[in-house]
Amino acid sequence: MPSRADAEALDGDDPLAPYRDRFVIDNVGDTNVIYADGNSLGRLPKAARDALHHAIDTEWGKGLIGSWDRWIDLPQRTGDLIGTAILGAREGQTIVADSTTVNFYKLAVAALRARPDGAVLTDEANFPTNRFVLQGLDRAIHLLPPDPTVDDVRAGIAAANGPVALVTLSHVAYRSGARLDIEGITRAAHDAGALVLWDLSHSAGAIAVDLADTGADMAVGCTYKYLNAGPGAPAFLYVRADLHDELRQPIQGWFGALDQFAMAPSYEPASGIARFMSGTPTVLALTAVEAGARITAEAGIHPIAAKAAALTDFVIAAADDALAPLGFDVATPREPNERGAHVALRHDDAWRICRVLVERFGVVVDFREPDIVRVGLAPLYSRYVDAWDAIDRTREAVAQGAHHDMPEERRRIT
Amino acid sequence: MPSRADAEALDGDDPLAPYRDRFVIDNVGDTNVIYADGNSLGRLPKAARDALHHAIDTEWGKGLIGSWDRWIDLPQRTGDLIGTAILGAREGQTIVADSTTVNFYKLAVAALRARPDGAVLTDEANFPTNRFVLQGLDRAIHLLPPDPTVDDVRAGIAAANGPVALVTLSHVAYRSGARLDIEGITRAAHDAGALVLWDLSHSAGAIAVDLADTGADMAVGCTYKYLNAGPGAPAFLYVRADLHDELRQPIQGWFGALDQFAMAPSYEPASGIARFMSGTPTVLALTAVEAGARITAEAGIHPIAAKAAALTDFVIAAADDALAPLGFDVATPREPNERGAHVALRHDDAWRICRVLVERFGVVVDFREPDIVRVGLAPLYSRYVDAWDAIDRTREAVAQGAHHDMPEERRRIT
Repeated sequence: MPSRADAEALDGDDPLAPYRDRFVIDNVGDTNVIYADGNSLGRLPKAARDALHHAIDTEWGKGLIGSWDRWIDLPQRTGDLIGTAILGAREGQTIVADSTTVNFYKLAVAALRARPDGAVLTDEANFPTNRFVLQGLDRAIHLLPPDPTVDDVRAGIAAANGPVALVTLSHVAYRSGARLDIEGITRAAHDAGALVLWDLSHSAGAIAVDLADTGADMAVGCTYKYLNAGPGAPAFLYVRADLHDELRQPIQGWFGALDQFAMAPSYEPASGIARFMSGTPTVLALTAVEAGARITAEAGIHPIAAKAAALTDFVIAAADDALAPLGFDVATPREPNERGAHVALRHDDAWRICRVLVERFGVVVDFREPDIVRVGLAPLYSRYVDAWDAIDRTREAVAQGAHHDMPEERRRIT
Repeated sequence: MPSRADAEALDGDDPLAPYRDRFVIDNVGDTNVIYADGNSLGRLPKAARDALHHAIDTEWGKGLIGSWDRWIDLPQRTGDLIGTAILGAREGQTIVADSTTVNFYKLAVAALRARPDGAVLTDEANFPTNRFVLQGLDRAIHLLPPDPTVDDVRAGIAAANGPVALVTLSHVAYRSGARLDIEGITRAAHDAGALVLWDLSHSAGAIAVDLADTGADMAVGCTYKYLNAGPGAPAFLYVRADLHDELRQPIQGWFGALDQFAMAPSYEPASGIARFMSGTPTVLALTAVEAGARITAEAGIHPIAAKAAALTDFVIAAADDALAPLGFDVATPREPNERGAHVALRHDDAWRICRVLVERFGVVVDFREPDIVRVGLAPLYSRYVDAWDAIDRTREAVAQGAHHDMPEERRRIT
């Protein structure tokens, strides 16, 4: 295992180190807690806190209805910020509004309307809400193996034995952390006449995505993970410009209508990406999205992605040395380009280990069924010493058998 | 016209007068501005401000992922608060999540799935987003006249000349302020085998609704108007308990699934009202919903409704005296039980009058196409002197012809 001094040296050389101070670092009053769950809920950026206080006290409290002048384009403004600076999209292709689930639903339905025949391909390990949405759409679903390669997708298309309307996958898998090949899979799907819808929840703000260059059709994703926009913050939605006119989303609301305040008798979709909006967006939450995304944009997604690769390399090396002898194995790909920013550690007693780490060792990790300890050290504010401490405390806990004191009964620890 | 002293005397006798101090009253630094747009965006409750600051700084900032213990039941907890204390629902029938538009969509689709044949009845003056959603549902739509009576609904059902699946109306019309008969219309719809979906956006927190006693099937509505929950705050959704199992909403997300964190292979809807949820709710915004709704619950919806009736009576009487000679007429029903909490003043030059009132006379009203000045004095924090000043300043502005200085060009003033 590398030494803690090695970790300190890496922190000393980290060009992103100053960004840690842009966040509130004070877990339940204890700055010694290691927060390895930034892939579930990102930390509070000081700028988001200040922007929210201002939006509440001044924009809402004093400006009242007049503040809509500043609020009305938040979905587009924030979407463009995330799209162009973080996801490699062009302007006018990204908005922020509604939840990831609702956005996924809108785009999946729009895609199936554009492809009235054909099956849906997804992988059996895709995030539950995505699979659940698809199961509601009255279209045959073919399941690919977890973390499918381009060849797996081509084989799945062949096995579907008929038209394929939609291929939809998570770019980075929420359990294993495996990263899929957007460009190759998109090409394979296009060759079969299918559209592709990506879930970028575990990618956005952690690794580079390059939507425009990969030819991606559609994408959705979270802002409350690596974009640090706060609990349940609204999600982004991306559609390639040349598909805007072709796609018709089902939730036809006034914010997606042409000339919203004409209150016209008939719905006409707005031009461009705005047609994928529906109802009134949550303004306060959007304020935090904007502030959170700005920090990522300022730091630059490429330096962040480089640190994500190095930090996960460090975690994997330390886990190989210190945890493998205790029954752990690394379930995340070892090639940095093939993974996101979290590391999945498999262990037969993963549930009780997670619980003892959170409750007694000051390491906030999360558990994923059936046997995964997920270590998500968000590159923007996590240090190499955090990685070292997280692994070392895990080693100590399991070597002591401390997890055996924990009940087997599983409760939500999100 | 009543005198300003009359208004002051009414304020002196107002049992709700102390509630004004529970809100931030400081429009753009000027406490002399009359805010008559509480039916569009409610004022900031001091308790919501404090709850939001706490949720941001402490729950998110320090508690991080662990705060989900407190957040996870916010949609149900806040729903029950609004449902039982404000809407006359029973426990377990109301949730808060997503926008009004998304909730309206979910319930409209669920209703049409439960009634696979038959038309939709709505009125031609229904709020645009509702009409737009319905137009996307691939079912015949029959339009009732604006502000339909029970007889109008029965006639509409007869004229549909076939099965009717769904009747959906706004309880209080956003333009005219007319209030419909929930109980009578629900009975008429049920007699025809139809379900009824109510939009309570302009009722909730302003007048009594009594969902359970009226036999209402389904309802949705805003929290950012009279419930003072902040710009774009998530909306409520109500379904009568005995319909929970029958109705299947289309956006099958993980928050609406049985045993959410099992991440099961197949979607099974949660039991009860939770099945109408979809994705992760916006936690910060829900915090404000809870704080805003609590004040309404504490003041009591019946005292609030009584004040709404008296305050709108006062506005109508003052408008009859002072504004009718200037070309205004009152477009809102004169019987208090037949209206909500805002008053619509019709005038041929309504647009320019609204604009001059907002920009030069310190009266924040809003305009609704084509000829309505909407005066929305939220009963919880508005005074009779506010009503008096609003009408008197309107009289002064129009008598002077000040509105003639305003451009005809219409821009959004929300």
